Amino acid sequence: MTKKIAVLPGDGIGPEIVEQAVRVLRALDLNLELTEAAVGGAAFDQFEHPLPPLTLELAQASDAVLFGAVGDWKYDELPREFRPEQAILGLRKSLGLFANLRPAILYPELANASTLKPEVVAGLDIMIIRELTGDIYFGTPRGVRSAPDGRFAGEREGYDTMRYAESEVRRIARIGFETAMKRSRKLCSVDKANVLETSQFWKDIVIEVARDFPEVELSHMYVDNAAMQLVKAPRQFDVIVTGNLFGDILSDEAAMLTGSIGMLPSASLNEKGQGLYEPSHGSAPDIAGQNVANPLATILSAAMLLRYSLGCASEAERVEAAVKAVLAQGLRTPDIHEPGTTRVGTAEMGDAVLNALQRS
Amino acid sequence: MTKKIAVLPGDGIGPEIVEQAVRVLRALDLNLELTEAAVGGAAFDQFEHPLPPLTLELAQASDAVLFGAVGDWKYDELPREFRPEQAILGLRKSLGLFANLRPAILYPELANASTLKPEVVAGLDIMIIRELTGDIYFGTPRGVRSAPDGRFAGEREGYDTMRYAESEVRRIARIGFETAMKRSRKLCSVDKANVLETSQFWKDIVIEVARDFPEVELSHMYVDNAAMQLVKAPRQFDVIVTGNLFGDILSDEAAMLTGSIGMLPSASLNEKGQGLYEPSHGSAPDIAGQNVANPLATILSAAMLLRYSLGCASEAERVEAAVKAVLAQGLRTPDIHEPGTTRVGTAEMGDAVLNALQRS
Ligand SMILES: CC(C)[C@H](C(=O)O)[C@@H](O)C(=O)O
Ligand SMILES: CC(C)[C@H](C(=O)O)[C@@H](O)C(=O)O
Repeated sequence: MTKKIAVLPGDGIGPEIVEQAVRVLRALDLNLELTEAAVGGAAFDQFEHPLPPLTLELAQASDAVLFGAVGDWKYDELPREFRPEQAILGLRKSLGLFANLRPAILYPELANASTLKPEVVAGLDIMIIRELTGDIYFGTPRGVRSAPDGRFAGEREGYDTMRYAESEVRRIARIGFETAMKRSRKLCSVDKANVLETSQFWKDIVIEVARDFPEVELSHMYVDNAAMQLVKAPRQFDVIVTGNLFGDILSDEAAMLTGSIGMLPSASLNEKGQGLYEPSHGSAPDIAGQNVANPLATILSAAMLLRYSLGCASEAERVEAAVKAVLAQGLRTPDIHEPGTTRVGTAEMGDAVLNALQRS
Repeated sequence: MTKKIAVLPGDGIGPEIVEQAVRVLRALDLNLELTEAAVGGAAFDQFEHPLPPLTLELAQASDAVLFGAVGDWKYDELPREFRPEQAILGLRKSLGLFANLRPAILYPELANASTLKPEVVAGLDIMIIRELTGDIYFGTPRGVRSAPDGRFAGEREGYDTMRYAESEVRRIARIGFETAMKRSRKLCSVDKANVLETSQFWKDIVIEVARDFPEVELSHMYVDNAAMQLVKAPRQFDVIVTGNLFGDILSDEAAMLTGSIGMLPSASLNEKGQGLYEPSHGSAPDIAGQNVANPLATILSAAMLLRYSLGCASEAERVEAAVKAVLAQGLRTPDIHEPGTTRVGTAEMGDAVLNALQRS
């Protein structure tokens, strides 16, 4: 059966890194139908909307979305609803992509890239599960109004609502526990239950769900402490599950611990197994079109796509092995280049992965 | 004129570290009236409330509060309103301590303590200005209810409200700009304006306030990026101003970059210059009463107290110089001890600071 993949390159380096990931997908002997569409600033330029209806329909009708990156300074002055980021928020919400899987893995060959001491980060391998369709990201009411009460009543104020419903917490907690079962059976739930009602509610439900996973050792940590512990002793973590806002902050912090965010993929899944796959880094408009961007995070995102949305675990492993092989060969894009390794461009890195794949 | 200081030791290591800071304050030739009162779990044990009315009244009637730390696992199961942390939240709110100043300084003698590479953190000196009485910490409505609308209408949900009124943002922004004027004239405002209405509102007002400080170079950064940049290149920051929730997370992350959170003080000020001064670290009940806790963060908090609430800048400098002197002598409590330095206990460290002070 043909699998449908929507390819959304987006802005900045998006097109060139997605191109390499597409080559990798095409090189596998799978029955894939890849269809490209505009998203982000590129879509705004063409259709006056960062997520045009046709792009959204294509994504909805696909088994998976391969996403590049969106954003460019030139759209900074647009009203918020037209800015490139709205495309990614819109896709998450419309497709119900509630589970964001963000690995932070330090490849042994790239240990030097980290700003942390090698003895602190060697072997780092954290999986952050971030809830992606709830929380203060989408909670209403929100806006600017005259303050209805409190010390500043009558003044102008900005406001947002953090909310989590029971089933929302339950389903992301299950993903956390299931992921932990496949790894070290340790799960850390991060919240701010000493201050927030939403967090206390979250925590109580996670504890309930834990009853179904007696083999998983569950711990809880406040988000401020988690931000500290990631710097102090990051290897204490294996799987972390947390809400949308805290997950946004901690997954970026954890990614940067590796020093090589150009290597980190991500998956965003819904209840039907449909998913959106994108590199953890951004659109880097400053280096776009120069054949210097690292395509490996996007290629590894394609591997996650194979695993989670197409059920092609062995192909996923082949792609991941090919990426490891090119690292072992010493090939490096500028972001991860260091003395003694071979500097290559975006396309050459793609070539090398394809070669490694063909040899496998 | 006699200045009144409320001394609130609290739980865990609180009493022993505050004791050393009190010795330092008494050794200065100032007209101080120090009065001790119970707070946190210790107060709950005695008065069935973490912030008893007498303690609150004492704090309100004082020029400054010297605070140790609160919290202990034994209170974890209490209903939230009786837990030790409520004391600190209650003091902030009742005294209107809206401006939290949290320096993250890496002392050259302690450069090894950091988990980051020396070339990344050497000379680190960041001042985080965290708004402390608004945001989702205190915003109402909040609680657990049946969801009134949305996809999960009718289900149980936890919810909180993030809110910032115009004058709240304005006054903390001013503190940010004023602090920047005394330092490198660079201010970075951290928000999540690409997602949150409160943040966009915050950002717009910070930009307005900037007009009064044409000499300050203002930048804006999203909180997820700030969490990353603190790991990647922390020295790009000088003064950061941000809201209560983001400040909670980022100030702890920044503190941990130094590797010596036992050295970091904090000040929380209101509009009248009253302030609460506490170490950035917690109550560490696991090491309480063993004469191993580092009293320097509390002693440095007393120095901030002298500077910000008593207007005694030269005494503040003398205390800070005394702390630097004991580090230069090679004295270290266990948390910062390394080969080649002299390990001392809490009280001995206090003795050494007093000696250095008397010599100055
Ligand atoms: C672009 C932005 C809206 C987005 C988010 O905050 O979720 C990004 O930071 C991410 O983590 O994917
Ligand atoms: C104890 C807790 C309520 C508090 C906070 O979140 O503000 C603490 O983390 C802090 O930063 O002082």
